[in-house]
Amino acid sequence: MKSTNSVFIATSMDGYIADKNGQIDWLHDLPNPENDDMGYHAFTEQIDALVMGRTTFETVCSFDIEWPYTKPVYVLSRTLKKIPEEYTGKVFLVNGSLKDVLAKIYNEGHYRLYIDGGATIQSFLQEDLIDELIITIIPVLLGGGTALFSDLNSPLQFKCIGSKHYLESVVQNHFKRNR
Amino acid sequence: MKSTNSVFIATSMDGYIADKNGQIDWLHDLPNPENDDMGYHAFTEQIDALVMGRTTFETVCSFDIEWPYTKPVYVLSRTLKKIPEEYTGKVFLVNGSLKDVLAKIYNEGHYRLYIDGGATIQSFLQEDLIDELIITIIPVLLGGGTALFSDLNSPLQFKCIGSKHYLESVVQNHFKRNR
Repeated sequence: MKSTNSVFIATSMDGYIADKNGQIDWLHDLPNPENDDMGYHAFTEQIDALVMGRTTFETVCSFDIEWPYTKPVYVLSRTLKKIPEEYTGKVFLVNGSLKDVLAKIYNEGHYRLYIDGGATIQSFLQEDLIDELIITIIPVLLGGGTALFSDLNSPLQFKCIGSKHYLESVVQNHFKRNR
Repeated sequence: MKSTNSVFIATSMDGYIADKNGQIDWLHDLPNPENDDMGYHAFTEQIDALVMGRTTFETVCSFDIEWPYTKPVYVLSRTLKKIPEEYTGKVFLVNGSLKDVLAKIYNEGHYRLYIDGGATIQSFLQEDLIDELIITIIPVLLGGGTALFSDLNSPLQFKCIGSKHYLESVVQNHFKRNR
């Protein structure tokens, strides 16, 4: 089965995923009276599992909310020894090279993966392992923060296959890797 | 008359206007059999004059082409003493604070300005003097280069008022400052 590694993430106009203070409240500053999820639910319906780094996992755990994922979550970490018991059956610790990690996940029957978290997305891009990026641009210039993208050894070509508008303010661009 | 400071520029997906080697050839890598100008001519029809920095001016001068602008070009520079004679009547040297420069340009009857060049755009943004940005995203991750955006003292809110697609690959997002 063909595998797909997808990114679904929001950035500022200047490409940040967190502001200078590490905060993400600016993501929710826009009036959203009908709680439009900007395609998030429809996207997650199309994936088999998530892959994220330890930082993203711990951030999600720190939110005072129910565990938000219905699909298996693979947490990439070299330092984490054990997933807390309450996440048994939902969260799985993986480590090793990304190719090995992916082979293991495919072997468990998950081919359409949601790759999440800045550092994890950057590692995948560095090995040209991302097939599509759906980037929601929150129309603010933050002027500093944590960048979504980082250095690459060589350029990667994509094509923009579509754009959607939300809340009369936000644009979401869908890029596919041109291989 | 209401003034408008507009930016019309292309960036990579990771927000660069030149690659790691200062080159911009990746801007023209996409097949473009009908020489679609992606709205450039229509945009320049709507402006009264251009404002650019010395670097951009000298870069344009270095191209082996006819002078490409039909509108007056104001070149911001503290170091340039004189505009070369061949540009007399087309190019005007300005310096001082941006507010003073704008006052002078408005006084000459030009209210709709095309602000061009990375450093100039950054200076205008730092003083919140940009009203709209039309950003054409060339769908490549360069992984390094000269960034369009830089540090800001405080965030600036915009809204995306429209998007256009070109060459089945490129997206152009139009942002207006939300004042």
